[in-house]
Amino acid sequence: MATYVSESRPMSNTLSADAKSAPSSDQSSRTFKTIGLIGRLGSDKVVDSLQRLVTYLVAHDYSVLVEDRTATVIPHHGQPEASRRMLGELCDLVIVVGGDGSLLGAARALCRSGTLILGVNRGRLGFLTDISPDELETRVSEVLAGEFEVEQRFLLDTVLYRNGVAVGNGDALNEVVLHPGKAVRMIEFELFIDGQFVYSQRSDGLIVATPTGSTAYALSGGGPIMHPKLDVVTLVPMFPHTLSSRPIVIDAASEIRIHIGETNQSYPHISCDGQTRAVAKPNDVLVITRKPERIQLVHPIGHNFYEVLRSKLGWSHRLGD
Amino acid sequence: MATYVSESRPMSNTLSADAKSAPSSDQSSRTFKTIGLIGRLGSDKVVDSLQRLVTYLVAHDYSVLVEDRTATVIPHHGQPEASRRMLGELCDLVIVVGGDGSLLGAARALCRSGTLILGVNRGRLGFLTDISPDELETRVSEVLAGEFEVEQRFLLDTVLYRNGVAVGNGDALNEVVLHPGKAVRMIEFELFIDGQFVYSQRSDGLIVATPTGSTAYALSGGGPIMHPKLDVVTLVPMFPHTLSSRPIVIDAASEIRIHIGETNQSYPHISCDGQTRAVAKPNDVLVITRKPERIQLVHPIGHNFYEVLRSKLGWSHRLGD
Amino acid sequence: MATYVSESRPMSNTLSADAKSAPSSDQSSRTFKTIGLIGRLGSDKVVDSLQRLVTYLVAHDYSVLVEDRTATVIPHHGQPEASRRMLGELCDLVIVVGGDGSLLGAARALCRSGTLILGVNRGRLGFLTDISPDELETRVSEVLAGEFEVEQRFLLDTVLYRNGVAVGNGDALNEVVLHPGKAVRMIEFELFIDGQFVYSQRSDGLIVATPTGSTAYALSGGGPIMHPKLDVVTLVPMFPHTLSSRPIVIDAASEIRIHIGETNQSYPHISCDGQTRAVAKPNDVLVITRKPERIQLVHPIGHNFYEVLRSKLGWSHRLGD
Amino acid sequence: MATYVSESRPMSNTLSADAKSAPSSDQSSRTFKTIGLIGRLGSDKVVDSLQRLVTYLVAHDYSVLVEDRTATVIPHHGQPEASRRMLGELCDLVIVVGGDGSLLGAARALCRSGTLILGVNRGRLGFLTDISPDELETRVSEVLAGEFEVEQRFLLDTVLYRNGVAVGNGDALNEVVLHPGKAVRMIEFELFIDGQFVYSQRSDGLIVATPTGSTAYALSGGGPIMHPKLDVVTLVPMFPHTLSSRPIVIDAASEIRIHIGETNQSYPHISCDGQTRAVAKPNDVLVITRKPERIQLVHPIGHNFYEVLRSKLGWSHRLGD
Repeated sequence: MATYVSESRPMSNTLSADAKSAPSSDQSSRTFKTIGLIGRLGSDKVVDSLQRLVTYLVAHDYSVLVEDRTATVIPHHGQPEASRRMLGELCDLVIVVGGDGSLLGAARALCRSGTLILGVNRGRLGFLTDISPDELETRVSEVLAGEFEVEQRFLLDTVLYRNGVAVGNGDALNEVVLHPGKAVRMIEFELFIDGQFVYSQRSDGLIVATPTGSTAYALSGGGPIMHPKLDVVTLVPMFPHTLSSRPIVIDAASEIRIHIGETNQSYPHISCDGQTRAVAKPNDVLVITRKPERIQLVHPIGHNFYEVLRSKLGWSHRLGD
Repeated sequence: MATYVSESRPMSNTLSADAKSAPSSDQSSRTFKTIGLIGRLGSDKVVDSLQRLVTYLVAHDYSVLVEDRTATVIPHHGQPEASRRMLGELCDLVIVVGGDGSLLGAARALCRSGTLILGVNRGRLGFLTDISPDELETRVSEVLAGEFEVEQRFLLDTVLYRNGVAVGNGDALNEVVLHPGKAVRMIEFELFIDGQFVYSQRSDGLIVATPTGSTAYALSGGGPIMHPKLDVVTLVPMFPHTLSSRPIVIDAASEIRIHIGETNQSYPHISCDGQTRAVAKPNDVLVITRKPERIQLVHPIGHNFYEVLRSKLGWSHRLGD
Repeated sequence: MATYVSESRPMSNTLSADAKSAPSSDQSSRTFKTIGLIGRLGSDKVVDSLQRLVTYLVAHDYSVLVEDRTATVIPHHGQPEASRRMLGELCDLVIVVGGDGSLLGAARALCRSGTLILGVNRGRLGFLTDISPDELETRVSEVLAGEFEVEQRFLLDTVLYRNGVAVGNGDALNEVVLHPGKAVRMIEFELFIDGQFVYSQRSDGLIVATPTGSTAYALSGGGPIMHPKLDVVTLVPMFPHTLSSRPIVIDAASEIRIHIGETNQSYPHISCDGQTRAVAKPNDVLVITRKPERIQLVHPIGHNFYEVLRSKLGWSHRLGD
Repeated sequence: MATYVSESRPMSNTLSADAKSAPSSDQSSRTFKTIGLIGRLGSDKVVDSLQRLVTYLVAHDYSVLVEDRTATVIPHHGQPEASRRMLGELCDLVIVVGGDGSLLGAARALCRSGTLILGVNRGRLGFLTDISPDELETRVSEVLAGEFEVEQRFLLDTVLYRNGVAVGNGDALNEVVLHPGKAVRMIEFELFIDGQFVYSQRSDGLIVATPTGSTAYALSGGGPIMHPKLDVVTLVPMFPHTLSSRPIVIDAASEIRIHIGETNQSYPHISCDGQTRAVAKPNDVLVITRKPERIQLVHPIGHNFYEVLRSKLGWSHRLGD
């Protein structure tokens, strides 16, 4: 029997688990038929894992689609190639080999199609990529047999308006950052949440992070860790001029509106997941909302957020004597 | 037309404004009939406000019930007296005069009955008590005329188990704190959330705060500000031995379980809203959950959480030259 | 009797009060003869204060020298002009009108000559500019009469080396910042103090601040406030990847050496008091030491560091109810 | 030739190295003659190390004095016993086996006599106890041969005054803590440094830490790491009510005076290195100064503060992927 497992918690983001029929050698009963492959470029280890995946999947009669840029680094893979967006249209499951950064990029591209995404980690354990290479075939075979959990993660949508016209936009799975472009230059802005004025701030910028991003950049800025299930967003001021400024956690359904101050000497930049997406001018308005689509992250059964936390944050390490 | 506005549901706080009939001199159409009064002891200003309230309410033909302890400080009030719990049973609305601390106590007593609670502040602006004394009659008359918003706040329920038997319990609107009883003595415990092991920690203790409590003790310990609408809880380690420990935000529906370590030299105490409720022994288990009942906080129309934040946290103050 | 009070030495700040002769109408006995004036450009209030100063000083028979750039904004001042450096050579005292930022710039230019510097604040109270405009003539006359304290502040000297050759340098009274040039991009470097390896760090950068700078940018990054008398420096990591990173306080006589990592994708910038002084390449070495010269800051008698702190940081403001 | 090594840095705490004569089999030329032994009670590992030390020292013709309490746990050691204070009088060197906590206690007792102290760590690497048991004989023999560095550390002296009369006092190598006695109860006090008013504070207390203590309790409260050489003290507010409160670093020669507020509901306690030394009443005055005596800490040659930091704080651990 397929032990297709999904989460069932009240607040959360669970996939409604369509009961699947029992597995068999009959391909038609399979959970997945077409598998896409994406890998981080520039790493021999990634190429090695990708080749092992191709071998394994072909041997087990899956259709394999290799992302076109990834294909350039896998010699003689012999499989059809497609763009990321096409992978979203054509695949039941996309396997991303790399780090959390690689998965961020794939997730933004695949969120519209709702394709399931599985992360294989090359390097250290990731928050998003939780299959380790030394158990690659075992874990992938379990997932292909239907033994997995699906976790949904929401993304942020950000649009920059100038005189009421959208002049830039971006998607973020981790965080949107408003920053001075050049470091060490204060910017000034006003924050409104759901139309209510919150504060005017002079600082190095503002991080608006999802639960997914709460263990990334926002954490090093003093933001709280937020459980990935939660439908909340945190706003973390960066080097704020006012010492009583603190991270705020709000409903992810809120509209966040940032009015860029008139007096900014530099042009504040807007970054999504670490990549600059727009450059603001004085009096521009930045609007950040939750995207309607969510990414569908596949985990092996028994995946435990707190275990990853302990490992990544070194919580086993103790200070004392 | 009465603009009675209340919240409909747990998490979203949108307003199910039951259209009420037009106000009239006819008492039967009134939103409220019996009003309870509770005041902080030991303040002449509080007594003054209470007396003004009695005068106003009696003049407008409301039934008034004075909490028995409060009654001892209001000379010749001439109204019936009752315990807090009875106030909850008999009153449509209870007005609390004092600070946020006074309202915390009243709220815990009244949460079972679901009575509406209105806070009048004596002293500085409070997060919970938002009517200032100089506009006492005006604001109260608006509320009595049905012009108010109702905001629900959840409480935490905490039970201490020893060998499987409950040996102590308490309610908290702000926060539950596990601490060494004597300050400056480390305690050791293990944290589980929804049955999953999170960490073992050596620290001065742990604060488990609601959104309501996120602007109180937890904030001075580095916890995030959480919007009062949210159904989340934050866990803030106090002086943790492990420097990578950070505040975590989780679903308020989660079960928080804390295993008291065997090796604790002192007996850790459990406080609810600042009052010690239980003393733990090694191997005891503390379980914290959200209470099913919520308190019903009444605000004048236009109450703005962020405005209170700015005022209380001095966000208008800026560091720079 | 002239109460000329000055500091004698680096760390202790005790007063080597050179006994001066009694004051008289005889100019030769005066503490100061030639006074320089520097003002922040672009402010009418600054111009007003400068004009009042010219009038006052000329009326009392002081020689006045106006900094050449400042002279362009004071119409018809009728006094000789000179560059900043020349002011240092020719003046006994230089009065700077503006904010702390204006004084930072003047201080760096004047530190070599050891000229006394007096700050007049236009805007809010400053840490460095502590005479307020409404008491301008009174306070200046006191200082001219010899009633003042001299506080020494040290500066940092920073040199960037490439293959052993100095390719950039700068002075800082507040802080030296190593940062990615573009915000939100991690840099990687190794830190050595007095030749001992301290850590390798991945972060948004590092702030190296003097006590003077400890109430400026470093403070918003979590650094400690350091008393201006101390001969120490603090190193504050910016958004460090390692959560256990903490500000460190070391002897200001230490040599701080930062090895720029090979793998940096961007070219880290070096800023001094907020202005970019050099751009590093992989494998460059940044050396930061204390400058031998110190600036000589003049305060009216009774100047109190903690009073300025309370005012600037809003310590009179209290959170509670 | 004896390579007796002492530090020679400007600001620091160095022992004036009396040049010793060359080592020989002649006992009279030895650096040390009488060695004291102190151990943490309740650990078999400590007993094992102590026994190895007795064996080694006796075999090499040193006089050994065992602290009387320690003697109770070493069966048949056959050496004379003495109190801690007597050890200070009679020994050239005292070896402490245990953790940093054991060394703190010994250091306070031995600081008056200026006896050299060597720490052997049982458990994990300590900041103060830096000889590991597996290299016990090797390292001790090096020290006995004169190959060591001496590092001085200062202590704090604290006296509690009531109506001008001293009613309690204590010594601290790590920190003095003013706290509410019962946790989770705010205290109120005023702080003066060298007679200057700094702030009135409502908080859970105040930590006054030496550089030695800056890596202990103060660090978990957000205080900076201060190099052990520095002659400074940090004041770290504990859960301060005012969000702009920050750690302050001041000259260790300063007099710190704390006025206990009238309104405190509980009696604030004063702890030194984690042990309660006095209980204050409203209007009491606590005075904290640097003790004139310093402890003399012996390190093997090449001891590196930053290396211990990296090890203890897990700075080798990195968050990222």
